[in-house]
Amino acid sequence: MNAPRKVILREVALRDGLQSEKRFIPTEQKLELIRTLAAAGVKHLETTSFVSPLAIPQLRDAAELMARVEREQLEHEVMVPNLKGAQRAIDARADRLILFVSATDAHNRANVRRSVRESMSDADAIFSLANDHRVPVAVAIAVAFGCPYQGPVSRSDVFEMARHFAERGADRITLADTSGLANPAQVSDMVAFFRGRLPDVAFCLHLHNNRGIAMANLYAGYLAGIDLFDTSLGGIGGCPNIPQAAGNLATEDAAFMFEAMGVETGLDLTGLITAARMLEEILQHPLPGQVMKSGLPEVRPTFLV
Amino acid sequence: MNAPRKVILREVALRDGLQSEKRFIPTEQKLELIRTLAAAGVKHLETTSFVSPLAIPQLRDAAELMARVEREQLEHEVMVPNLKGAQRAIDARADRLILFVSATDAHNRANVRRSVRESMSDADAIFSLANDHRVPVAVAIAVAFGCPYQGPVSRSDVFEMARHFAERGADRITLADTSGLANPAQVSDMVAFFRGRLPDVAFCLHLHNNRGIAMANLYAGYLAGIDLFDTSLGGIGGCPNIPQAAGNLATEDAAFMFEAMGVETGLDLTGLITAARMLEEILQHPLPGQVMKSGLPEVRPTFLV
Repeated sequence: MNAPRKVILREVALRDGLQSEKRFIPTEQKLELIRTLAAAGVKHLETTSFVSPLAIPQLRDAAELMARVEREQLEHEVMVPNLKGAQRAIDARADRLILFVSATDAHNRANVRRSVRESMSDADAIFSLANDHRVPVAVAIAVAFGCPYQGPVSRSDVFEMARHFAERGADRITLADTSGLANPAQVSDMVAFFRGRLPDVAFCLHLHNNRGIAMANLYAGYLAGIDLFDTSLGGIGGCPNIPQAAGNLATEDAAFMFEAMGVETGLDLTGLITAARMLEEILQHPLPGQVMKSGLPEVRPTFLV
Repeated sequence: MNAPRKVILREVALRDGLQSEKRFIPTEQKLELIRTLAAAGVKHLETTSFVSPLAIPQLRDAAELMARVEREQLEHEVMVPNLKGAQRAIDARADRLILFVSATDAHNRANVRRSVRESMSDADAIFSLANDHRVPVAVAIAVAFGCPYQGPVSRSDVFEMARHFAERGADRITLADTSGLANPAQVSDMVAFFRGRLPDVAFCLHLHNNRGIAMANLYAGYLAGIDLFDTSLGGIGGCPNIPQAAGNLATEDAAFMFEAMGVETGLDLTGLITAARMLEEILQHPLPGQVMKSGLPEVRPTFLV
């Protein structure tokens, strides 16, 4: 069995989640959310993105947020769209930089107005800078399972991108199903293919729920050996450049599943529900998460033999 | 590999779905929905329940509906709570009777005001009657994976119930996660245990999504060899006697997943989306299904190697 006994749910509500919210959420509320997440055991955060404030006004407080966040026991990973963003992230003492590039030109142009080749060559300077400052770099490959603009995506093309970035020094690659086009068989296949060929790279799955099957995709990835997943409190989120984007998988739903199976997450489900309900109050609209609505069963849901 | 190459999605929107809708849906609209489902390739319907009209007013038109439904290429299965209901269902030319009993007394009493033992002994007369009329009988075991009132459920207790009903002549047993307490590891374990010990019985999974992980549970059941699943157009539904019940898995979402994996469902996804949107108009509130909102990708979401 490949299936891990422990998994990490990497919390992306602050970045992927909030970036699609139109109303600016004050920095103080973001900090309170982070404190509540930390109290529930969350350790790995995608805290913000050093993207242009014009592109994503919600994240315009990236530097202030990073200056004020609690550091102890929290890993603050931040997205960087370019060299300037990388420098700002390093100045802000980010624990890790996340580069992102799409598997297709069409999506990459929609996202950053660059071809994939241009973005890949831009990345070289970021790797050098990060290396100089000894900040680790991960790469997220968007639309890795299919593109809403271009259609099917070649597994070998995605793999060549992953290998390229691993050679440049990326110790982690995220395979992102940005618009919910993956299926469990494809996830199993991709994960086995990538892990077998790049055994020194950590892989993370980032799965949107546009077609209601992301939790099955996550479970397929878990069975194939993945122990790191991007999830989002309350299931918020959605790519601004994807038609009818749906949210990420809810952190508390994924945590419920793993804990029910006896797989350690290090997370406190009651604390996560508290955080999700706080987020719902902050955002003032219902969130798609289910555990936050149904609550925990009073008795642990494992069965007696 | 146990995983089947073909699956059947048994449509329960008409019964499990509609029963939680307060406003009575006219018989004519139910018939139109059935016609639209049939046009999308649906062949297996849980069409109604011959329950007391006082208990579930929504299904008070059971006899009229059964008198008017199209028969060709459709299997009309109906739920029966007792001998009187069974006689009415047989009179209405039901293709199959579905008995239901809960795995726990607490839930069974909430549902039908009888102990599990009483319900099991009531079933004997129904089996005799059905046998006399050569109508096949299936049994659905509610809260088989955990009970919101009583907590954990003993696998061996559920198994003894299944064996009892198989001996009485049930050729199919549905294991129902009525309030969304199952997890994928438990589903795998239960399916392997039951299929191994009752090889002549067909098993069906009925999975509610209260905690957002039902699609992973379905996928786990599929991997363990299940080829028959209850799903509900648009994801409507919820047990009236379960606190904060969530709907079933959306038929069109499950169909999307299977078709994307190359597993035959016999269903037309575009036709299902049409039906789900019609249902949303009939019910006048948003449904939880995702494919009906995101639509199909223009290009088949499998990947090129």
